[in-house]
Amino acid sequence: MKGLPDVKDLSMDSGVQQMLEKARAEGIETAFDRAIKMSQCGFGATGVCCKHCLEGPCRIAPNGKGAQAGVCGAGVDTIVARNFLGNVTEGTASHAEHAREVAHAILEVVAGKAPYTIQGVEKLKAVASGLGLSSEGKDTNQLAKEVADKAMEDFQKQHGTLNWLELRAQDKSKETWEKLGLLPVNAHLEIAKSLARQVMGGDADPANLLLGAVTMGLVDGFAGLHMSTDLQDILFGTPTAVKSQYRLGVIKEDMVNLSVHGHIPLLSEKVVEWAGKLTDKAKEVGATGINVVGVCCSGNEVLMRRGVPVATNYASQELPIVTGALEAMVVDIQCIMPGIQTVASCYHTEIITTLAYSKIAGATHVEFTAERADEAAKEIVLRAIANFPKRDPRKVNIPNEVTEAYAGFSVEQIVEALRAVNPEEPLKPLVDAIAGGQILGAVAIVGCTNPRKKQDHDNVALVKELIKNNVLVVATGCSAHSLGKFGLLSPEGLQYCGEGLRNVLTAVGQANGLPGLPPALHMGSCVDNSRVADLLVALANYLGVAVKDLPAAGSCPETHHPKALSIGTYFIACGVDVHVGVNPQATGSPLVVNVLTADKENFPVTTDGLFGGKLIYEEDPVKAAGLLIERIKQKRKALGLN
Amino acid sequence: MKGLPDVKDLSMDSGVQQMLEKARAEGIETAFDRAIKMSQCGFGATGVCCKHCLEGPCRIAPNGKGAQAGVCGAGVDTIVARNFLGNVTEGTASHAEHAREVAHAILEVVAGKAPYTIQGVEKLKAVASGLGLSSEGKDTNQLAKEVADKAMEDFQKQHGTLNWLELRAQDKSKETWEKLGLLPVNAHLEIAKSLARQVMGGDADPANLLLGAVTMGLVDGFAGLHMSTDLQDILFGTPTAVKSQYRLGVIKEDMVNLSVHGHIPLLSEKVVEWAGKLTDKAKEVGATGINVVGVCCSGNEVLMRRGVPVATNYASQELPIVTGALEAMVVDIQCIMPGIQTVASCYHTEIITTLAYSKIAGATHVEFTAERADEAAKEIVLRAIANFPKRDPRKVNIPNEVTEAYAGFSVEQIVEALRAVNPEEPLKPLVDAIAGGQILGAVAIVGCTNPRKKQDHDNVALVKELIKNNVLVVATGCSAHSLGKFGLLSPEGLQYCGEGLRNVLTAVGQANGLPGLPPALHMGSCVDNSRVADLLVALANYLGVAVKDLPAAGSCPETHHPKALSIGTYFIACGVDVHVGVNPQATGSPLVVNVLTADKENFPVTTDGLFGGKLIYEEDPVKAAGLLIERIKQKRKALGLN
Repeated sequence: MKGLPDVKDLSMDSGVQQMLEKARAEGIETAFDRAIKMSQCGFGATGVCCKHCLEGPCRIAPNGKGAQAGVCGAGVDTIVARNFLGNVTEGTASHAEHAREVAHAILEVVAGKAPYTIQGVEKLKAVASGLGLSSEGKDTNQLAKEVADKAMEDFQKQHGTLNWLELRAQDKSKETWEKLGLLPVNAHLEIAKSLARQVMGGDADPANLLLGAVTMGLVDGFAGLHMSTDLQDILFGTPTAVKSQYRLGVIKEDMVNLSVHGHIPLLSEKVVEWAGKLTDKAKEVGATGINVVGVCCSGNEVLMRRGVPVATNYASQELPIVTGALEAMVVDIQCIMPGIQTVASCYHTEIITTLAYSKIAGATHVEFTAERADEAAKEIVLRAIANFPKRDPRKVNIPNEVTEAYAGFSVEQIVEALRAVNPEEPLKPLVDAIAGGQILGAVAIVGCTNPRKKQDHDNVALVKELIKNNVLVVATGCSAHSLGKFGLLSPEGLQYCGEGLRNVLTAVGQANGLPGLPPALHMGSCVDNSRVADLLVALANYLGVAVKDLPAAGSCPETHHPKALSIGTYFIACGVDVHVGVNPQATGSPLVVNVLTADKENFPVTTDGLFGGKLIYEEDPVKAAGLLIERIKQKRKALGLN
Repeated sequence: MKGLPDVKDLSMDSGVQQMLEKARAEGIETAFDRAIKMSQCGFGATGVCCKHCLEGPCRIAPNGKGAQAGVCGAGVDTIVARNFLGNVTEGTASHAEHAREVAHAILEVVAGKAPYTIQGVEKLKAVASGLGLSSEGKDTNQLAKEVADKAMEDFQKQHGTLNWLELRAQDKSKETWEKLGLLPVNAHLEIAKSLARQVMGGDADPANLLLGAVTMGLVDGFAGLHMSTDLQDILFGTPTAVKSQYRLGVIKEDMVNLSVHGHIPLLSEKVVEWAGKLTDKAKEVGATGINVVGVCCSGNEVLMRRGVPVATNYASQELPIVTGALEAMVVDIQCIMPGIQTVASCYHTEIITTLAYSKIAGATHVEFTAERADEAAKEIVLRAIANFPKRDPRKVNIPNEVTEAYAGFSVEQIVEALRAVNPEEPLKPLVDAIAGGQILGAVAIVGCTNPRKKQDHDNVALVKELIKNNVLVVATGCSAHSLGKFGLLSPEGLQYCGEGLRNVLTAVGQANGLPGLPPALHMGSCVDNSRVADLLVALANYLGVAVKDLPAAGSCPETHHPKALSIGTYFIACGVDVHVGVNPQATGSPLVVNVLTADKENFPVTTDGLFGGKLIYEEDPVKAAGLLIERIKQKRKALGLN
């Protein structure tokens, strides 16, 4: 394939580079090459294209040339704001469905219909108490049922607001949202209403549409992220620190390799469990055992709780297949490239879809529900085993690099680690370090990788710049995978830290019997951005300030998914600045840009003015780090810190 | 404005033409002219453009040139099927929200919190009985509460299927949907899940996506159309035959003119009520009274139940303003062009939005809820009155044509009219006429007008061709308005009928003391397509056949809104062919075209094969009528009729 860029320009990961070369040599197209072939439409990329009715599609040239209103009369601000709301709504629907699947599963479990056991009893009690439920005299299943019923109410109630918002929001934030009339009633109702307002001839007020996006952000945050994390911790246990490995080298030539990909751990946990039970079957076909490897957020879930190694992250999800040694890739929902099936058809790899509403033409479908989790997971693992003898040895080529990494940094684990320094007031050492300036502030690195960007590069470059400047970094999602691949989830990475940060992380680590904590703390999957929010609320409450006053921010350097916009909107609504390194497809409207980014200080309404958080769009990761540091310094100053 | 087409080519309605000339002379742009300026994007128009993530937008050229997969690997079939599902989901969300607003209002009414009275006691009892609720010993409010609670369950339940599907679906249809796993659980859940499956990396199987669209169609039909109609009939009474007027001439120079526009009669009914109460206030400012006129489906609702005249339909909604004599236009949701505000700003007309999630920048917002219906409606009417003295007499120019029309043909009214012919078996005369060939079959003309098509032309041309061939026509929505404007909702229009049809309509009309029934029976607003479905189920049950076996079809010659695709999908799922005269933005995928239109007889899966109904896309109205007649003849033949 001539004319394509060097693979070194497509990914920082040498294993990925090696597999890209192999794919090209075999005539196989991957997302990186498709991204080069597919030019982005300039209208769509700036958000000025409207596809909401059969009078259109209409599009407004941002240069003022041509028609400046759609057929219905909608101007560019309405169109862009509505498209932004559309993206946020899609992301929110994804996370809400994730949370509801888990709530439904818990109800099946406690009814004795689904083969899981409630493992997070501590978390269950904490969540129940937060929801106002007494644990007294109730067994685990009874309490779990009551908690899951409260979760289900968040998809059913017609008055009031989300139980999970009451549970997890800081009071100061809730007051702001309530005053603006933005509190969501129930997740499904708000999602459907959001769609109804986007419809042709619906809401045409750009500011109102953006406020609608904030309500969606709150649904995403509370009925998506927080509920998913809380219920998953209840069902599968709260993560604790765990050591594992990263990169394509985690695929083992002598083993049956099975990758889990997608998001909801109901599937991936069961696959890991059955992989452990069926080793003998794997030996019967000549393998030494079964090797489950993670991709994307399913990878994060089983990494966080079981230490399962991670093969790769979003943009390169097709490349584990190109090793020629992957027997099966089992997927559930979200971020699953249909391209995996095309690539798999060139190998013996079987793509297995599992949910009725998320299939891929040509793939095997094994219906997975909580009720039939065991039989489905067993069938999936047996299918992988049955594929092992079908491998073509001539096609096998596994990159050999692996990188060690730590994960499992739930809020509970972070507090536990800090407790080794100060048993009475565990947050005090962290707060003191921030107050004393050893730690400048904190940034969460979140999101994805995107085939249009050199994979992992911006995630890594931004983090290196931050930690050099003594900014504490936590990470989730595929961004965390980027950091894991390049040693930033390991104490080895402390070499890149400024002195203050390094000293703090080393001290806390040593108090816990480690050489040091890693420079970036892996807090989990994308829904586990809830953990970041919990940490911020805990810190703010400890200090007696609002979350928006904290010297903290979020950054999403390489996102590709609308879910990132939903998560970002949630954090902005909480008062946290959010950087995106990828065009958020909203730049075509001066009004939307000004509201979201507070670019013009005197613009009448901005998210910064309303909530204390704003969007920062900057493609250069080092410049972006500079902007985040500048804002952190502003917030420090407002708190009276140097 | 040079270079623009003659206004005679934009609308058949001479009043609209006159106002278009006036607008142009005054330098005011309307939707018709914007449609000319805005070229449609060829990618979007064929459905091959994907905007579901930040890797894109991607688009696949239907000619096979350029990239044939999106960055994620999605091919054209996936992209088109997903976009189709997206359109159907948006339409469904609109109708579901409409229904839920009415259900919520009834609950407020029976709790004594909202100033309405349950007027449709007969309908209430019928619906309650259909839902399995006993009326015995219950007062109206108690029974209405139980019915509204059943409605609310359709937005809350987590198991089973919609109460309204059980109430209104033919058993044979339900069996088919159940076998295919398509039965919706609750409306909001299915809408949110549909959105979650459309998300990047979600469902990538085009056939599965299209089945998802069918589930959306069922939500639209039962939790949207049927529920809205049933609850509105309960709250405001079931329509009975009523005589009224059409066209811009219904605006009166000496009166305060106030147009109601949008969809939910909660608002329009109250505005009509308060207009009646505030005549004295209007006289105080020099007007002879208050004249409420209808636009779009709010117009249909108050036409059907109160005989309020209709000024115009969708595409020309800006033109009542251009008369210079419209004091206010009050709107709720859907089909409201933002352009009305721009046009209104050139006159004294006040645009009043009423729902928090549907505003227009620059318009007055009077928050309307069931609870404060009286104060809001009073404020709205008083605002219109206050604007009367602000009229600029130099700008006033009202076209003088009006056309008489009959509306109010609910199923109950149609049965009642037939009962005058056969009191014991009212459906028998109709069935006999079909069996005997005097009536060939029946077609429902539904949908909109679209500024890209010569307004009213195709609606009228198609109906004239059908009735000439003895096809009985019923009509709803803005299509019914087209027919009303041109005499087809009046016995005058019988002149266009074939002999058989004319004889039947004349006989039934005369049995009811009229010169004849109109050639097209106006059954109501777009949600009242439920009435069409009820009529089909009643006829099919009477005959002991499935709905899909009936010689009946639907046609949507001039649609512009995704709601039309949702309604169409519902009817196709019921086994009824649906014609659309506007590009449904799905032609870019051979697979989607074949599944929906059953173009290739041997295509493995088609909606025709699964459900007995298919999509017919034909822009020429006379050709379309021919295709519908041909299909009706096929279905007659299968029933053993000549």
